[in-house]
Amino acid sequence: MAVRSFAEEREWQPFHTPKNLAMALAGEVGELLAELQWLTPEQSAAVMADELAGARIRAEIGDVTIYLVRLAEVLGIDLVDAATEKLADSARRYPVGRSRGSAAKAPQ
Amino acid sequence: MAVRSFAEEREWQPFHTPKNLAMALAGEVGELLAELQWLTPEQSAAVMADELAGARIRAEIGDVTIYLVRLAEVLGIDLVDAATEKLADSARRYPVGRSRGSAAKAPQ
Amino acid sequence: MAVRSFAEEREWQPFHTPKNLAMALAGEVGELLAELQWLTPEQSAAVMADELAGARIRAEIGDVTIYLVRLAEVLGIDLVDAATEKLADSARRYPVGRSRGSAAKAPQ
Amino acid sequence: MAVRSFAEEREWQPFHTPKNLAMALAGEVGELLAELQWLTPEQSAAVMADELAGARIRAEIGDVTIYLVRLAEVLGIDLVDAATEKLADSARRYPVGRSRGSAAKAPQ
Repeated sequence: MAVRSFAEEREWQPFHTPKNLAMALAGEVGELLAELQWLTPEQSAAVMADELAGARIRAEIGDVTIYLVRLAEVLGIDLVDAATEKLADSARRYPVGRSRGSAAKAPQ
Repeated sequence: MAVRSFAEEREWQPFHTPKNLAMALAGEVGELLAELQWLTPEQSAAVMADELAGARIRAEIGDVTIYLVRLAEVLGIDLVDAATEKLADSARRYPVGRSRGSAAKAPQ
Repeated sequence: MAVRSFAEEREWQPFHTPKNLAMALAGEVGELLAELQWLTPEQSAAVMADELAGARIRAEIGDVTIYLVRLAEVLGIDLVDAATEKLADSARRYPVGRSRGSAAKAPQ
Repeated sequence: MAVRSFAEEREWQPFHTPKNLAMALAGEVGELLAELQWLTPEQSAAVMADELAGARIRAEIGDVTIYLVRLAEVLGIDLVDAATEKLADSARRYPVGRSRGSAAKAPQ
């Protein structure tokens, strides 16, 4: 994605510290929560069938992704590598047999 | 990424409503903020040089990515498409000439 | 509350900028979300009956309050005044007759 | 504050589960972050001197307070008690002599 060149063309690098980008990411996640806050879980599962709400949620997901990609970029982190490592770690902490159907948190 | 099969093997689908996953995403972003909250912007820009803090931040970025991927999956949204569309929209709202070096928010 | 003297005794004022305190507030709210994320709405309504979860939630609510009080303090905002003003504004935007039983968002 | 009667007059109790209110709280905190995200720490410390930004931040602080008060209410938690307990706990974990001028996190 062209997130980096988008920022550089506008000379926004001084604003794009990890601290600021993490705040921006959190702000966008807050807007996403606001779209879902009064829905029941069942309504939330069907939300994309509503054209207006679906478009707003799609836009928020886009914003969250943009800031996450940009944050990873300035930190020098590969998102897919970081997620794959974390998933392997979770696979160790939550073995299939013991975790089936349970949301209980595993010890660190 | 194997996020979907990870959840399905553990029969976690009932927990993985958009509402619940958005909360989980926000919770992980909160942990990321906690890593950066007392740093100056300059310290945040150098944080990956600190081995321990860097590893924690990499793990948080991994967690955020996992929940964002999973949330997009249950919503039926393609993350790259959603981000690309939003970036095109922002390019229109923030023309290069008018936005250079400014963090001022454009009207919707 | 003794939030201010607590910070001053430890010479934490340099860390307590509005920006940093807002991040800390968001981090604590993230921990609160994590306590509730996999619960159904009904389970969340009964969560204080669970001794361990109830104690964790009470502690998170305490943390959120501390950072909100401290943030308001450094901004020079009276929390009760700010909330009262906002409530009056919401009363205007959400007249009782038109808003009964509906979570629809009013225009700004 | 009249937060409870405000909600009851509008018959909003069914929406006001702890889960939903925690999401709403997080959404408002996200809006607060958005006001501060591109500011330097120094600019954030002076933000209330800007009439427009100051009014927006005051309104966000009001919203955050309203949802925190309402959440505590439905959970049956006294905010001041919860914060006072947590502050006493922090005083034990961060003794003045050892914590002066340091943002290092204490062990749990």
